[in-house]
Amino acid sequence: MTLILSNDDVERLLSMTECLDALEDAYVELAEGRGVTRVRSDCLTPTGREGAVYGLKSMDGVLPKQGIGAVRIGSDMVTWPRRDGKLRRVKVPAAPGGRYVGLVLLFSTENCEPLAIFPDGVMQRIRVGATNGLAAKYLAREDAKRVGILGSGWQAGTQLTAICAVRDIETIRCFSPNAENRAAFSTEMSATLGVDVTPVDTPEAAVEGADVVMCASSSIENIFFEPWVEPGVHLSSIKRPEIETKAIQRADKVVIHTRDATPMHIATKGLELPERTEGQGWAMTEAVDMAKLTTLPEIIAGKAQGRTSDEEVTCFLNNLGMGFQFAAAGAVVYRKAKETGAGRDLPTDWFTEDVHP
Amino acid sequence: MTLILSNDDVERLLSMTECLDALEDAYVELAEGRGVTRVRSDCLTPTGREGAVYGLKSMDGVLPKQGIGAVRIGSDMVTWPRRDGKLRRVKVPAAPGGRYVGLVLLFSTENCEPLAIFPDGVMQRIRVGATNGLAAKYLAREDAKRVGILGSGWQAGTQLTAICAVRDIETIRCFSPNAENRAAFSTEMSATLGVDVTPVDTPEAAVEGADVVMCASSSIENIFFEPWVEPGVHLSSIKRPEIETKAIQRADKVVIHTRDATPMHIATKGLELPERTEGQGWAMTEAVDMAKLTTLPEIIAGKAQGRTSDEEVTCFLNNLGMGFQFAAAGAVVYRKAKETGAGRDLPTDWFTEDVHP
Repeated sequence: MTLILSNDDVERLLSMTECLDALEDAYVELAEGRGVTRVRSDCLTPTGREGAVYGLKSMDGVLPKQGIGAVRIGSDMVTWPRRDGKLRRVKVPAAPGGRYVGLVLLFSTENCEPLAIFPDGVMQRIRVGATNGLAAKYLAREDAKRVGILGSGWQAGTQLTAICAVRDIETIRCFSPNAENRAAFSTEMSATLGVDVTPVDTPEAAVEGADVVMCASSSIENIFFEPWVEPGVHLSSIKRPEIETKAIQRADKVVIHTRDATPMHIATKGLELPERTEGQGWAMTEAVDMAKLTTLPEIIAGKAQGRTSDEEVTCFLNNLGMGFQFAAAGAVVYRKAKETGAGRDLPTDWFTEDVHP
Repeated sequence: MTLILSNDDVERLLSMTECLDALEDAYVELAEGRGVTRVRSDCLTPTGREGAVYGLKSMDGVLPKQGIGAVRIGSDMVTWPRRDGKLRRVKVPAAPGGRYVGLVLLFSTENCEPLAIFPDGVMQRIRVGATNGLAAKYLAREDAKRVGILGSGWQAGTQLTAICAVRDIETIRCFSPNAENRAAFSTEMSATLGVDVTPVDTPEAAVEGADVVMCASSSIENIFFEPWVEPGVHLSSIKRPEIETKAIQRADKVVIHTRDATPMHIATKGLELPERTEGQGWAMTEAVDMAKLTTLPEIIAGKAQGRTSDEEVTCFLNNLGMGFQFAAAGAVVYRKAKETGAGRDLPTDWFTEDVHP
């Protein structure tokens, strides 16, 4: 049987702690060369909608230790609105019913069969949180108590869940440009985490005196700047351009997620892509030589050192997601779905064949 | 609704002529930079089976003119047996029921929705045939009548259907190492094509005096050699190493399918891959500088010349498949499936989501 799962199933079956554990274990496999991951690619073309671009994204990974291969696909209507003074990358829910389109397909490395198909949204969010959480586990001060977060959207919630799972956090201050959003987010996250989350009026007020600064925005422009760097802080980002290059250069230790630093972009000739334009988006961190930096999997596998003193400034750039993460998190979800009887069973024969492909 | 189609549906909905027309039109889009394709990738790891490797393959492409994006996935148990004196690349049907696993997913570039999911086997075979058929249309002599084919397996059939669709073929001679296989294949194809297909005892007997020589094997070693090259012949292959490099170098005009000549191979450290070993497989055509050769889409789009004289020796290397082909052929299948009510409808909501991925 091939399981069809929903985002609700994934939410129920994959806790932050389980995702942290799964990724931590899987990253050792990756650093040791046993796990494999194929860099994200984006095929970009025109679509019928003005100001929008069609993007067919994919990334793959295999975690032999768990017997799972994963393909993650995004079929996106991408726009780049300027909102609250920042250029953003925002997907439009263009599919029937005003919905987004992202899928994960899991396969068995033992008999190749398609094990499960499910939407990617919830897992995507948890694994980004867990990745930055693991970075904080290895790079933030052991006694880190105060968090400053820049952002109050979809990704910000799991960033906080993750940091609270790896450190005893006492206070969180949140800034985002929209006062209503940051207030609602703070109220909601205070209740969820049992930790005081306070909305503040400026980014400076959020990050001043923080032990951990988390950037969790949809911005493709800088939102954290060099003068705000304080001794001993751990900085982290989920989008390449969030932390100003000068601030990255102030860090004593900069760690990246993957050395496959640039997604493959294959675009229709002449297509305009704001995030690939000089001076913004991906180009903003061109001065940082990713190839020379340590990766999070290397630190977890003990091949490189994490934080070495309380004064050190550390910086984690979640520079690009990996298909491999969906194999690791997918293994947990699939195992638990089978144990609990979750999802819909479809005949595997619909997704297999009797002819040599 | 998201359509689930079967190989039988694809076989019924996609004729060789329709596939030839769809690819011919789509290749203009590709050559003009409007269509896009992402090079095939293979994530390769150990599996439980001795002598086998697990391979998670993927390739993507988007054809905006038809409003279709395609992802093709293979989840394969790959082996490299030596059979009839040649090293081969053979997939094992390891999935439940002794089945293979390959899927195509189609998406709309207009509203992103997942339009259809179906096994890849039948379409894979037709588009390989159609690709070499189009190459023959532009490169073989107009009056080509005699075909020699090396191979009698799964791919050989559509090679013959394709050549018969683009030229008035009168005789076909077939060699493959196994006498029983080539006899059965010849009987079957004579009936299907209404053209006399004769099994012969040696490769030389098949290719001597042929106007078109088609290599259609599973071999990853040379099967066609330089002394067999005759003036005016059109040579074609479906696997990189089939035609000896010296024979390729004898051709006046060598045309390739794509300049993305090498798939991305990401493998577990130390994994043994016969096809990547020196002196066989991919390495065998290293002396041919693919980057400098003309591509089939360029010739179809009129950006480069096809055959210019009857004496010219032409050679088409179907050097690597493209995800883009599945968008082009997929557009035909999807349109006809909707017109005829083929396939199973599943709720699109199963494959879309209400959260930002």
